[in-house]
Amino acid sequence: MTTQQLTQQIHKKKSFLCIGLDVDLNKIPKHLLETEDPIFEFNKAIIDATHDLVVSYKPNTAFYEAYGIKGWQSLEKTINYINEKHPEIFTIADAKRGDIGNTSSMYAKAFFEDLNFDSVTVAPYMGKDSVEPFLAFENKHTIMLALTSNEGAFDFQTLNIDGKELYKTVIETSKNWKNSENLMYVVGATKAEYFTEIRKIIPNSFLLVPGVGAQGGSLSEVCKYGLSENIGLLINSSRGIIYASAEENFAEKAREEALKIQQEMQVILEN
Amino acid sequence: MTTQQLTQQIHKKKSFLCIGLDVDLNKIPKHLLETEDPIFEFNKAIIDATHDLVVSYKPNTAFYEAYGIKGWQSLEKTINYINEKHPEIFTIADAKRGDIGNTSSMYAKAFFEDLNFDSVTVAPYMGKDSVEPFLAFENKHTIMLALTSNEGAFDFQTLNIDGKELYKTVIETSKNWKNSENLMYVVGATKAEYFTEIRKIIPNSFLLVPGVGAQGGSLSEVCKYGLSENIGLLINSSRGIIYASAEENFAEKAREEALKIQQEMQVILEN
Repeated sequence: MTTQQLTQQIHKKKSFLCIGLDVDLNKIPKHLLETEDPIFEFNKAIIDATHDLVVSYKPNTAFYEAYGIKGWQSLEKTINYINEKHPEIFTIADAKRGDIGNTSSMYAKAFFEDLNFDSVTVAPYMGKDSVEPFLAFENKHTIMLALTSNEGAFDFQTLNIDGKELYKTVIETSKNWKNSENLMYVVGATKAEYFTEIRKIIPNSFLLVPGVGAQGGSLSEVCKYGLSENIGLLINSSRGIIYASAEENFAEKAREEALKIQQEMQVILEN
Repeated sequence: MTTQQLTQQIHKKKSFLCIGLDVDLNKIPKHLLETEDPIFEFNKAIIDATHDLVVSYKPNTAFYEAYGIKGWQSLEKTINYINEKHPEIFTIADAKRGDIGNTSSMYAKAFFEDLNFDSVTVAPYMGKDSVEPFLAFENKHTIMLALTSNEGAFDFQTLNIDGKELYKTVIETSKNWKNSENLMYVVGATKAEYFTEIRKIIPNSFLLVPGVGAQGGSLSEVCKYGLSENIGLLINSSRGIIYASAEENFAEKAREEALKIQQEMQVILEN
């Protein structure tokens, strides 16, 4: 999928919502545990109930790897289900990978070819040759951690390097990498004013924004400072939507939560 | 496994060699491709031929994920084979993971519980709460990227923060994290003089050292500056050993290469 197609989908659905499919067997409704693949059944119900309200789904690979081969099978079934039923949806493998060049190529193959995700998240610490192998894939997108939404973000990401925070240096440096037009960035919603600074460096890049909702960030604040000409934002919510209820009506309740956010987004897009 | 037990193994085997099991189906001997699980058969042959010369094996997860579920099965068979046949060997899942707290817990569960590795590599960019969930596991070890051996290491890791390179700040900061005694660090062999500086910060921590051999680092130089009282070094070699030959005698040739390095290590340990 191209970024132009993603922007078109946002305008069509009046939504730039991404739902994080972070399935924890301890948190899903009990009746699903009796099925053969509870993780997939959970995801399928969430997808069926919300696909018209979102432009993206984002399974975090940790929640699948924790269940070994069975978990990897659930991940494969989930991505295949989305790609078959809703090919217009932008899929994100939230994997935060990154390694030396030939090894990053193997990760890129895993997520872009074997699983056929539209994008994958990567970590920047190992620099250019750890990210460029991902960027080499046409119409695939590499979402690099810039400023994350957790407390530990302030351990290193905001440290000062010659008068500039590390996360800004990371973003600026990455603009010079080969095929950098395939880069997007993770920017947490916890401090909306950061978006002003970031937009000075990358006016149009898409930003994947965790931290709205459960983690306390404000949607309207993020949009005020973060929206670009092509919208340029994907707002992720995981727990607030998928665990809205642990009863049999979980999918319906998830839809209600997603609808609330989509309606807020519609107002923002129409203004 | 405790670090004391690891040091004992090093003295017993007169080796601190780690072999990286980074299996690429395009590089292994053709006759293995006819077997049901070529990756596992390759690893099994390498392990059978080298286990008395090494203290550690390190599969890089990228090379398994690239083959999807089948690859994950090969990884599981490989770690089970090592744990059953050679429980004295220190196993490293080279996964370079890291995410917000509850997500890192899932990764820790995947590698420490489900697959039962002794250790896992992690990336530091997301800070304290992305690493501490790994450190919470008793007698398990978390090997954090500090200074890597690739060219991109100089993009961010060596940037200057108030007169100190980022990688040093990363190491120093991590010493204050909960259960930091379970930390080890990845330090590339490409510039041996860095080890002097690093040993001032962490005199006794184990360092996992890639970059000797194929990537050009010198074993004797690394040892000169990097050895600690408890040895404190695991020297990794992957391609130089496992791809010594692509013929039917590949395991025998791998043993020859491993033996050369082990003999160099023996001389160093006895001096």
